[in-house]
Amino acid sequence: MPSTLPARYFVDPELFRKEFESFFFDGWIRAGRAEDVASPGSFFLCEVGVESVIVLRDQAGNLRAFYNVCRHRGTRLCTAPQGRFEGRLQCPYHGWTYRLDGELLGAPHMEPCFAREQYPLLPVAVDTWDGHVFLHLGDSREPLARQLDELPVKFAAWRMQELRLYRRVMYQVKANWKLLIANYNECLHCPQLHPALNRLTDYLGAENGPATETYMGGAMGFRGAAETMSLDGKRRRSYLPGLNERQQRQVCYYVIYPNFLLSLHPDYMMVHTLWPKAVDQTDIVCEWYFHPEEMSKPGFMAEDAIAFWDQTNREDWAIVEQSQAGVQSRAYVPGPYSSREELLAAFDQVVLNRERRSQCF
Amino acid sequence: MPSTLPARYFVDPELFRKEFESFFFDGWIRAGRAEDVASPGSFFLCEVGVESVIVLRDQAGNLRAFYNVCRHRGTRLCTAPQGRFEGRLQCPYHGWTYRLDGELLGAPHMEPCFAREQYPLLPVAVDTWDGHVFLHLGDSREPLARQLDELPVKFAAWRMQELRLYRRVMYQVKANWKLLIANYNECLHCPQLHPALNRLTDYLGAENGPATETYMGGAMGFRGAAETMSLDGKRRRSYLPGLNERQQRQVCYYVIYPNFLLSLHPDYMMVHTLWPKAVDQTDIVCEWYFHPEEMSKPGFMAEDAIAFWDQTNREDWAIVEQSQAGVQSRAYVPGPYSSREELLAAFDQVVLNRERRSQCF
Amino acid sequence: MPSTLPARYFVDPELFRKEFESFFFDGWIRAGRAEDVASPGSFFLCEVGVESVIVLRDQAGNLRAFYNVCRHRGTRLCTAPQGRFEGRLQCPYHGWTYRLDGELLGAPHMEPCFAREQYPLLPVAVDTWDGHVFLHLGDSREPLARQLDELPVKFAAWRMQELRLYRRVMYQVKANWKLLIANYNECLHCPQLHPALNRLTDYLGAENGPATETYMGGAMGFRGAAETMSLDGKRRRSYLPGLNERQQRQVCYYVIYPNFLLSLHPDYMMVHTLWPKAVDQTDIVCEWYFHPEEMSKPGFMAEDAIAFWDQTNREDWAIVEQSQAGVQSRAYVPGPYSSREELLAAFDQVVLNRERRSQCF
Repeated sequence: MPSTLPARYFVDPELFRKEFESFFFDGWIRAGRAEDVASPGSFFLCEVGVESVIVLRDQAGNLRAFYNVCRHRGTRLCTAPQGRFEGRLQCPYHGWTYRLDGELLGAPHMEPCFAREQYPLLPVAVDTWDGHVFLHLGDSREPLARQLDELPVKFAAWRMQELRLYRRVMYQVKANWKLLIANYNECLHCPQLHPALNRLTDYLGAENGPATETYMGGAMGFRGAAETMSLDGKRRRSYLPGLNERQQRQVCYYVIYPNFLLSLHPDYMMVHTLWPKAVDQTDIVCEWYFHPEEMSKPGFMAEDAIAFWDQTNREDWAIVEQSQAGVQSRAYVPGPYSSREELLAAFDQVVLNRERRSQCF
Repeated sequence: MPSTLPARYFVDPELFRKEFESFFFDGWIRAGRAEDVASPGSFFLCEVGVESVIVLRDQAGNLRAFYNVCRHRGTRLCTAPQGRFEGRLQCPYHGWTYRLDGELLGAPHMEPCFAREQYPLLPVAVDTWDGHVFLHLGDSREPLARQLDELPVKFAAWRMQELRLYRRVMYQVKANWKLLIANYNECLHCPQLHPALNRLTDYLGAENGPATETYMGGAMGFRGAAETMSLDGKRRRSYLPGLNERQQRQVCYYVIYPNFLLSLHPDYMMVHTLWPKAVDQTDIVCEWYFHPEEMSKPGFMAEDAIAFWDQTNREDWAIVEQSQAGVQSRAYVPGPYSSREELLAAFDQVVLNRERRSQCF
Repeated sequence: MPSTLPARYFVDPELFRKEFESFFFDGWIRAGRAEDVASPGSFFLCEVGVESVIVLRDQAGNLRAFYNVCRHRGTRLCTAPQGRFEGRLQCPYHGWTYRLDGELLGAPHMEPCFAREQYPLLPVAVDTWDGHVFLHLGDSREPLARQLDELPVKFAAWRMQELRLYRRVMYQVKANWKLLIANYNECLHCPQLHPALNRLTDYLGAENGPATETYMGGAMGFRGAAETMSLDGKRRRSYLPGLNERQQRQVCYYVIYPNFLLSLHPDYMMVHTLWPKAVDQTDIVCEWYFHPEEMSKPGFMAEDAIAFWDQTNREDWAIVEQSQAGVQSRAYVPGPYSSREELLAAFDQVVLNRERRSQCF
């Protein structure tokens, strides 16, 4: 019988450090949305541990990302979480100035022998998938496409690139990031913990796809007359335009490692992005995206979906914090998974494989 | 001339960790009162470092204690500090259900081959002395009776099991737990620090009992017309029923290692329970217990005793925090004890003996 | 081309500990002002890391400093930041009493064999320069005069000992102390960061003195009609009495390692004292001193100078915090200094020399 991971995976700061390095600095991570860097000069910041990355659209229309570090004395160039650069980036300390493609334009009072071309901003790899922006902060990297594998085909019908952000809520959870992924990966807890959710979907009816090294997930159909996940299950918005009938009758829940929880509903998209802060602390950004045509309709309404998931989120974070507290005990020993927790066992295997691989280097 | 301990005993986090392990996980610690687990299903939680223990009365009337850790995925079963279980404990995450004797009753959706009997709650040893509940979280344990030795005989007359809680106050002190025990163990500081207390008892009149490896203490008689420890020394309550004349004229102050400070007055019992949180931080719970017959009398009044000790407590915590700050200095060297601090030298010896013993394993 | 220090000098807690030890416990540090210990019994406390030092004037009129640690049980003798002892120091715990020269006068209830003369307060070396009090907490020490070298001659004209404190402001900055010294040591950032300051002095006009192992600095002349550093550059106070014409037309900015930033204006003295708290955290005390004759004049006014520097301070602390954040990045590599940052390169050399020297022992 497969069983949960030993306690050290949830309590050891050093193991956390290595795991964070392996998952967040040696793979593609979800950073934000292309809609936030649509026009030249527009940018947003992405914070990964102590790193700050500037994601921007340059003058030529290319998406770029740079470490938020001036090449002069290391100062952060930018503190606003998002905005627009007027043609160039300027360090607020001594005024070193960079083009939006990273090239150093000006460095006041440097000696004549100073070779500006040797001091461009340091780039971070950036790519997109249907409107989601991904970063890769590591050296040896595979293309994003390989990490996503068949997902772009599988979820093309949802046309995620057309959707737009409606609401963002931030949560701080006192738990290891893997316990949050485990919580997302099973609905065996739903009857006990989420009575409202359990009225809308059958926790025994999840159809899991095959788990891979880079993502896993499944779909759940609705119960009875429910048509979406919301306080009453009523669907107050049109179906997303590209969906077929089967896609209209289910919600897809996918984890794309390490930090992207993608929940595709018939009429909206919900995204959780995880930002581990410590072995026992994780920040979560939850966002709701809708189709712009729907949002422009008079009487557009989304609080039914947002309030439903905000409540469900809080129920989940609270219980996961109790798991974190419990696994710290000297009495904790790995416990048995049921077959309905198969994705969790598969995720644990991914964690162990990663650990093994990173020890080879 | 005996002298105080070297600085590392008050400032080294690693030494603290070992000491906490030795004193709190390899010996009986005071956890609470039997009156809080009087009837089947009633429980309270006891937190020891990162451990949480559920102390409860089972259906058969037995006192039991379990680690607050579900055998499924390690989640804490219970978060309420005290209350009543209705016949069983259920994990709020996936609904695993346990009998009050710890046996696993139900584990939803586990495979048929799952052996429920292998997953009971993990027990913690529990015992009582005259209404005080003690826990032992270690493996190899001696009976509580051996740790208490002659105390049950010595203090039988106070009939502590009959007394009931009237008031509880929590304090957070920025000091090592041993400095708090040292402070409790001598009254040489009383004239200087506690003028109010010093009017009621003679700091030179303490009769210390012999110090042992598991407890130490002594008795102090009253000055002049004082009859109890309170703002004015007046006794507004009847003597505790079992006391003889000699016992009516003194206060007994005993430390039962590692966390139980027992102060027996002619008309009430005060208990300090120490919970070390870090090498330089200790939580203290102070409780006042009275006889239920007194408490049921119209006009029962106890603020004179509570206000007196709350003021004295605060005077003590403040000076002990200054000791903690001082011993961190590179200028601190162990200082000399006078003969009136003999119990402190004896306690230091207990600490050193414990340390030596734990190094053997 | 010289370049900034590697990241570890700003982020490694262990390297910080060693550096703090080397700079603050093996050299003279600025502790306060002689005006605060003018008469017998007057004292102030100086906190250095976890150390607390009592600086006082004894009965014979000598300036003395002692560790704030009772020789009995290590308790701090005094918690008030400044004040006056009435002829003796008494420990508030058990009443051990010391003369102002540190000798133990009384130790209640110690045995007859107790040798009081063996338990004086432990002294700290103390010295002064023109009203500034310095401490040396280390063992092998050179005279303060050698650390100051030619400064007492160079700045004699300002008669600093005659000036008196008018205002004190405390700041907490999330940055390594060396980044704050670097910030003070160059004005290349002034046009960009301090437009108000830049109107008063020409950032290209600094005349740096030769950098030494113990201090460095330079002078800047005023622009146009400016006569002092203030919101509008107008000088509302007489020149300090001893200055010649050349001294009246400039501001001298000197760092005396490790914690004394001395800014001598034509009409006032500003002092920043740095107190490193962690590798990425520094407390700063900023003080403004004026001539007592000016302060006694009706209509004396200093807010123009204080508000100007408070604003400049806050601009500096904010950008230095962004430097601290940036140099923690894995993308940070040492960047090039221009010739206008020559003092910074010299300071880095002092840091490296100190490190090398402390490794020899």
